[in-house]
Amino acid sequence: MHQAIHHLSIPTRGKGLIEITEAVRSWVSGQKVSTGLLTVFCRHTSASLLIQENADPDVRVDLSAFFEQIAPEKAGRYVHDAEGPDDMPAHIRTALTQVQLSIPIEAGQLVLGTWQGLYLFEHRSQPNRRDIVLHLIGA
Amino acid sequence: MHQAIHHLSIPTRGKGLIEITEAVRSWVSGQKVSTGLLTVFCRHTSASLLIQENADPDVRVDLSAFFEQIAPEKAGRYVHDAEGPDDMPAHIRTALTQVQLSIPIEAGQLVLGTWQGLYLFEHRSQPNRRDIVLHLIGA
Amino acid sequence: MHQAIHHLSIPTRGKGLIEITEAVRSWVSGQKVSTGLLTVFCRHTSASLLIQENADPDVRVDLSAFFEQIAPEKAGRYVHDAEGPDDMPAHIRTALTQVQLSIPIEAGQLVLGTWQGLYLFEHRSQPNRRDIVLHLIGA
Repeated sequence: MHQAIHHLSIPTRGKGLIEITEAVRSWVSGQKVSTGLLTVFCRHTSASLLIQENADPDVRVDLSAFFEQIAPEKAGRYVHDAEGPDDMPAHIRTALTQVQLSIPIEAGQLVLGTWQGLYLFEHRSQPNRRDIVLHLIGA
Repeated sequence: MHQAIHHLSIPTRGKGLIEITEAVRSWVSGQKVSTGLLTVFCRHTSASLLIQENADPDVRVDLSAFFEQIAPEKAGRYVHDAEGPDDMPAHIRTALTQVQLSIPIEAGQLVLGTWQGLYLFEHRSQPNRRDIVLHLIGA
Repeated sequence: MHQAIHHLSIPTRGKGLIEITEAVRSWVSGQKVSTGLLTVFCRHTSASLLIQENADPDVRVDLSAFFEQIAPEKAGRYVHDAEGPDDMPAHIRTALTQVQLSIPIEAGQLVLGTWQGLYLFEHRSQPNRRDIVLHLIGA
């Protein structure tokens, strides 16, 4: 049984979904594991992970609009506002999505479906650098 | 240490929660693992996984109603509408729930609580066949 | 490769976020695993898990307020009301968050980010005792 850990450092440029499927796939394929489990972990509370459709980019537009609307940036709405009007909405959007995803590996490949892409979902307005940990166990 | 992978192909008949606890449990029990970790992965972006109450079926009625209301099918609401009015709401409902769940195994049994059932949550109106991957690691 | 399982029994005193980071960290550090994967599993359908900011307590106030508002306790709103007005909202809030989280271990430490705390999110009004399963695999 083999284990490996790797960090991805992903630069973001304000709110939005950044596809990281290829970066993850590329590291996994170098590990020469046939059957296993990959865990992706986002070390932040104002950015999260999402598996979503990788075809029509309009899906990402609608997803972003949905999360804007469900936890709006609005003066006076939140007690916690010391870090800017986008911070508390960012925490809520993170709570509604995930900071961790595990994906099985079969025949050396992540079992992502045809239309599934793996995204980092940045919820802050300012550019950031996000630290994503990849953990692999398998043989 | 033992690993195994299995696919469940689950037919759906429009929107709703389909219990898959027994199908999963039955495969796991055949693997003769005493301590381990089972990962369930749904290879779709318009269907998801949910652990929820398996007793009163009204809970599923209310859950479905909640997800209908929070991301409604409404003409003109979404940019992405080429795949039908139920497609973008399906992506949002998938984002709000999970496509992956991992459940520890203790003394040969999934540690699901008494009231926890494992469900496939179909978000599309049309019947589908959904591919669920089970990955087990343990000893 | 080493595996271990442990149960945490967490008393709750009505709705709210209870930090369990130290209880989890303390058990993990006793396992002497350098690289591995910890899975935290909540065996309930009206309490859930959340990784959130551990600094400003106002974040938890706003998170609780958000989940109160998105799935309100309101007479006549839900079909399932036999277990009290807070039960169905509790199921919905559980569905919107997680009952399972996996966290990689690197150099003997959980890879939680600086601002990430691990919380049990109690959604019922009455005090409860919640059973959390910890599963560790690593070497």
